[in-house]
Amino acid sequence: MTVPNVREQLVAFVAEREWDQFHTPTNLAKSISIEAGELLELFQWSGDADEARVRDELADVLTYCHLFAYRLGAEPEELILEKLATTRSKYPVEKSRGRSTKYTDL
Amino acid sequence: MTVPNVREQLVAFVAEREWDQFHTPTNLAKSISIEAGELLELFQWSGDADEARVRDELADVLTYCHLFAYRLGAEPEELILEKLATTRSKYPVEKSRGRSTKYTDL
Amino acid sequence: MTVPNVREQLVAFVAEREWDQFHTPTNLAKSISIEAGELLELFQWSGDADEARVRDELADVLTYCHLFAYRLGAEPEELILEKLATTRSKYPVEKSRGRSTKYTDL
Amino acid sequence: MTVPNVREQLVAFVAEREWDQFHTPTNLAKSISIEAGELLELFQWSGDADEARVRDELADVLTYCHLFAYRLGAEPEELILEKLATTRSKYPVEKSRGRSTKYTDL
Repeated sequence: MTVPNVREQLVAFVAEREWDQFHTPTNLAKSISIEAGELLELFQWSGDADEARVRDELADVLTYCHLFAYRLGAEPEELILEKLATTRSKYPVEKSRGRSTKYTDL
Repeated sequence: MTVPNVREQLVAFVAEREWDQFHTPTNLAKSISIEAGELLELFQWSGDADEARVRDELADVLTYCHLFAYRLGAEPEELILEKLATTRSKYPVEKSRGRSTKYTDL
Repeated sequence: MTVPNVREQLVAFVAEREWDQFHTPTNLAKSISIEAGELLELFQWSGDADEARVRDELADVLTYCHLFAYRLGAEPEELILEKLATTRSKYPVEKSRGRSTKYTDL
Repeated sequence: MTVPNVREQLVAFVAEREWDQFHTPTNLAKSISIEAGELLELFQWSGDADEARVRDELADVLTYCHLFAYRLGAEPEELILEKLATTRSKYPVEKSRGRSTKYTDL
């Protein structure tokens, strides 16, 4: 069995519904913030959230992130690795080990 | 050449810096919201944002989403596909085509 | 000495800079989310944030909220009181005392 | 008739329900982000939102902002005016008129 191709499925889902017209970069950026707020709501008063709901809300953030990446002509994993290279140089292991300090204050 | 394994690279990056201790579910949910806000800032006054900065901020949201998924013992793509099945049934093609109406109002 | 009239000062500040054109409802809603994210960033890894920075970021959220209220022809305090009446009836004292449960689950 | 004292009403509302225990600075910062996301959701796909819902969601953001200000021992309007002084000096009228450019790029 092959792993289902997420990109193709998401693109088909959107195309069938003719929703591309709504997916401008600004609307996708808003959608990511909105869904991130719904995920955060599960942790509003305690750290002990229902796992099924967390999976659900995290999936919504991820979905809009993937749609945004495709719009940029990029693969999500490519964006992550590209950024990881920068972050590695901002946070050298010896300076940042065990500390949550922002790189501007390291 | 094999595609680099994002999961292994992210996990190693965090482990080397001993940052797992900061990555509680609540802190990851906050981090996703914070980074989503930085992405949105690029579209605060216009839809015409600098592409390199968009890639950069989108990568930050994606990175925290992936770290959160791993913590749940899930693959990001698995979460997306799981949710897509639900969303498909909430938004049947014939009812939702070309409309941005929320399913509760369809 | 009279308390300075915040509304007049904010409106004048915006008018002098001819910024009304940017303050559409959508842009104000985005701005509130963006500034809320900057406030949240101060609490990303710990609850112990610098007070001067908290005041600063909270002020930014408040400023955009006030500008949005004026645009709706409302006073911020009027909106708060209007909503408080609804919230009181959703959360009766005897049911909600000492509990952070959402009204839908009470 | 005197204008109702919002601060006293909000403080009493919270005290009656013994909710102060939940209103840590971190939880208030999360709450502001969450409610900001709900406000933004009304503008997710278009700028034409229902006014009653906008008033409602804006009131939620304002309420948490006011509760946060009180916790800091400050009045919301005092925070706004304090910040307005800084913003005035960052955005001189002659440089910023009619432009949405961030002060760092002016």
